Amino acid sequence: MSDKSTATIARLSTADGAFHQHLNALLDWEGVSDKAVQARVEEILADVKLRGDSAVIEATNRFDRLSVGCMEQLRLSPEQLKKAFDSLPDEQRDALSAAAERIKRYHEHQKPTSWQYEEDDGTVLGQKVTPLDRAGIYVPGGKAAYPSSVLMNAIPAHVAGVREIVMVVPTPDGVLNDLVLAAAHLAGVDYVFTIGGAQAVAALAYGTESVPRVDKIVGPGNIYVATAKRAVFGQVGIDMIAGPSEIMVVSDGQTDPDWLAMDLFSQAEHDEDAQAILVSWDVAHLDAVEASIERLLPTLEREGIARVSLQRRGALILCQDQAEAIDLINRIAPEHLELSVETPNTWLDGIRHAGAIFMGRHTSEALGDYCAGPNHVLPTSGTARFSSPLGVYDFQKRSSIIHCSPEGASELGKIASVLARGESLTAHARSAEYRIND
Amino acid sequence: MSDKSTATIARLSTADGAFHQHLNALLDWEGVSDKAVQARVEEILADVKLRGDSAVIEATNRFDRLSVGCMEQLRLSPEQLKKAFDSLPDEQRDALSAAAERIKRYHEHQKPTSWQYEEDDGTVLGQKVTPLDRAGIYVPGGKAAYPSSVLMNAIPAHVAGVREIVMVVPTPDGVLNDLVLAAAHLAGVDYVFTIGGAQAVAALAYGTESVPRVDKIVGPGNIYVATAKRAVFGQVGIDMIAGPSEIMVVSDGQTDPDWLAMDLFSQAEHDEDAQAILVSWDVAHLDAVEASIERLLPTLEREGIARVSLQRRGALILCQDQAEAIDLINRIAPEHLELSVETPNTWLDGIRHAGAIFMGRHTSEALGDYCAGPNHVLPTSGTARFSSPLGVYDFQKRSSIIHCSPEGASELGKIASVLARGESLTAHARSAEYRIND
Repeated sequence: MSDKSTATIARLSTADGAFHQHLNALLDWEGVSDKAVQARVEEILADVKLRGDSAVIEATNRFDRLSVGCMEQLRLSPEQLKKAFDSLPDEQRDALSAAAERIKRYHEHQKPTSWQYEEDDGTVLGQKVTPLDRAGIYVPGGKAAYPSSVLMNAIPAHVAGVREIVMVVPTPDGVLNDLVLAAAHLAGVDYVFTIGGAQAVAALAYGTESVPRVDKIVGPGNIYVATAKRAVFGQVGIDMIAGPSEIMVVSDGQTDPDWLAMDLFSQAEHDEDAQAILVSWDVAHLDAVEASIERLLPTLEREGIARVSLQRRGALILCQDQAEAIDLINRIAPEHLELSVETPNTWLDGIRHAGAIFMGRHTSEALGDYCAGPNHVLPTSGTARFSSPLGVYDFQKRSSIIHCSPEGASELGKIASVLARGESLTAHARSAEYRIND
Repeated sequence: MSDKSTATIARLSTADGAFHQHLNALLDWEGVSDKAVQARVEEILADVKLRGDSAVIEATNRFDRLSVGCMEQLRLSPEQLKKAFDSLPDEQRDALSAAAERIKRYHEHQKPTSWQYEEDDGTVLGQKVTPLDRAGIYVPGGKAAYPSSVLMNAIPAHVAGVREIVMVVPTPDGVLNDLVLAAAHLAGVDYVFTIGGAQAVAALAYGTESVPRVDKIVGPGNIYVATAKRAVFGQVGIDMIAGPSEIMVVSDGQTDPDWLAMDLFSQAEHDEDAQAILVSWDVAHLDAVEASIERLLPTLEREGIARVSLQRRGALILCQDQAEAIDLINRIAPEHLELSVETPNTWLDGIRHAGAIFMGRHTSEALGDYCAGPNHVLPTSGTARFSSPLGVYDFQKRSSIIHCSPEGASELGKIASVLARGESLTAHARSAEYRIND
C-alpha cells in the first residue's frame, strides 16, 4: 500500500483512486475462530457442564501447566488480595487508588433510574432498573495481565449494585500478578479463581460445586475465551467479542510530531495486530510524524511488537480537509479517537461513531486507558457503529411496569381485542375482553 | 410431575421434597441448534457474503418456494405498504394507529441523554449518545406473522433516531400479510424485502447489491434465524436470542378463575413450547383454575396448540405464601409476570428479575402484547436475569468524551505513567509523560 515497501508505516491518500480499497484491506479483521478451536471449546464447555470442578481442575492443570488437586488451590482468599494491595510500593498503591476513585466517580454518572408515569385514567406505566445478582469478570493472565482492566471491569459492576463479583484469572505456570490481585481488592471483587480459558467461561456460565454461576461474563480473552463466550451467550449475558485494539488520531498539523508518534506507539505496542492510524490534511506534518516514528521506534522497550503492528496495520493518511476527516472517522468507527486539533468541540456534532473521543492535544489515549475516569473497555473493529463502552448499564437490566386501572384496562382491551383477532390469537383477545366494562 | 398423568396441566407443590428438581425439569430449555443446522447456516452465510443478491435469490426461491429472477421482485415499495394500510378495515386501522401512538409515547421516556461534567482544573468528562445509522428488523412470516411485532421493533428504532430501518419478512409461497405491511407503513419502515431465514440475516449483516448493510439486527425467528444471528454477532449487533414465550401468573386467590385460565391460554396458544405457570398459596383457587382450564380449553380456536403447551410445559404451583412466591419469581425470572393480587405495589421491591410486570387483576398480558405501550419483545428463558425489554437503548450507543485541560493532563499523566510502567507498557507511559508540565 506504500511506494516504499521497506517503510515502517504505510502512507495513504484519499486522493488515490484505490484509496477505499486500500482502506478496506487495512481495516479488515476477521476474528472468527476456526472449526478446530470451536470443536475444542465445545468439548470443554460440555465437560465442565457435566463434571463441574473436576473438569475445570483437569483443564487448568493441562493448559496452565499446574498440578493442583482441588478447587481450593485455585481460589484466592480476600486476605491474599488485601496482602497484595498492602504490600505494593506507595507510589503504585496511590496511583491505583486515585485511578479507582476517578473511575468510580465517572461511572456514578451512568446510573439510570427507574421511572413511571400515570395516565388520565389512572393507568401507570414505567420501567424498573435492577442490578444483576452476580457478574463474572474474565481477566487475561500471563503477559497481558492488566490491573487497570480489573478496575475497569469491576468498578462499573459495583456502581451498578451487583451483589457478587466473581473474577477469574489464569496463572500459567503458577505465576501470580500482585498488581492484579491488588486491583481486585481495591475494586471489591468477592471471589477470585485462578482459572482461565474456555474452562473458566464454562464454570462461570454453568456454575460448578465451587464456582458460583454468574448472570453475565465480561472481559477480554484469547480466541478460546472469545469462542466460549459466544457459545454461552444466552445462557448468560456477555459483553462484546473484543478484537485487537485500535486508535485513530486526527491532527490539524499543530501537535508536536513526537507526541503523535508516541500516541500511535501506545496502541501499536499492545500486540502485533493492534492498529494505529493518523489522519491529517497537512502532508508536511505527516512527513514529520513519519520521521518521529523512525527516530523514536528504536527507543521503545516493545519495539518489536510496535514495529510489526505499524507495518502490518498502521497508516498515515493524507485527507483533503476536516469534512473528509470526519467522513473517515464515521467510516472507521474507531475504538479510540484522538482529536489532536485546536477546537475539538467544533468536531463533535459530526462524529457519529467512536468508542471514546480524546479531545485536544493534551488528551492522550493513555490518560483514558488508566485514570481519566471513562471505561477503557471499548468497542473494537468498527463495532462502535452499534456498541458502547463497558458501563454501569451493562450490569443492570430493566423490567417494564404496566398497571392498568379498571378503566384503562377496559379501553386498552378494546384495541387489543381487534389486533389479537387480526393475528388469529383469540385467547389473547378473550383475555383482554374479560377486562372490558360494558 | 403430576399424579394424574392424563391431566391437562401439572400440579406442583413447593412442599414436595422433589419440587426444585421438578421445577428445573419444567424450566429446562435448550435452544442450541444442532451441528447440521449450524453447518447449513454457515454455508448460507458464506454464500451470501460472497455472491450477494444471487445467493439471496436462490435461497429464497428454494426455501420459500418462489421463482423470482431479481431482487426487485423481493422488494416492496413504500406505495405498496401505504396501500395495505389504506385498505385496512377502519376498525383495524384505528386499533393499529392507537397502539402505535401509545408505544411511541412510552418509548419516548426511554431516551437517554448525553451528559458531561467539568472538573476543577477544567477537564471535561462525559458521554455522548447517538443513534445507529441503520437497523434491520426480522419479522417472521407465515403463520406467525405479527403486525404488532413490526410496531414493537420499528417504533423504538424510530424514537432512537435511527436513519434507516430495513425490514425483512419471508413470504413462503408468496403469501403477503396485509396487516404486516400496514404496520410497516405506520412504523415508518424505509425498506421491506420479502426474504427470510439465514439468507436474510446474512444480507442484512454483510449487505448485498440491493440490501443495505445494517448495524444491528433485531427480531425473533426460527432456529435458522437464531443460529445465523449468533454467527453474525460482532459483525453487527443483535438483540437477544429468543426462546419460547412464557408467562408466570401469581394469584392471591381473588381473581376470577376464568380470567386466569384465559391468561394462561393466551401464552399457551403461541406455540407448543410456550410455557404458562400459575402460582398461588390457595389450593382451592388452584382447583378452580384447573376446572376453568378443563372447561374453557375446548372453546379455543387454537385448542390443539394450547393443550400440548400446557401438558408439556405448564404448571399450577402451590406455594406457602407471598415470600415464597417472590422467591419463585426471582428463581424463574419470567418473561411475563402477572401479579394478579390486591396490592401489587407491595410486591415490587422484592422482585429482582422479570421482563415485564403486569400489575393487578385488570392488567392481562394481552394488553401489554398489543397496546399498553411497553415493548412486547422481552427476555425469555430466564434471561431477564441479565437482559431488558427491547427498547430505545437498543438502537443507540454511547461514546466517552474526555477533554483534558493542560493542568488536568499533567496531573493525570503522573498517575497514568506509574500504572503504565507497572504494566510494562512504556510507550503508554511516555505518551502520558509528554503531557506533564514540570
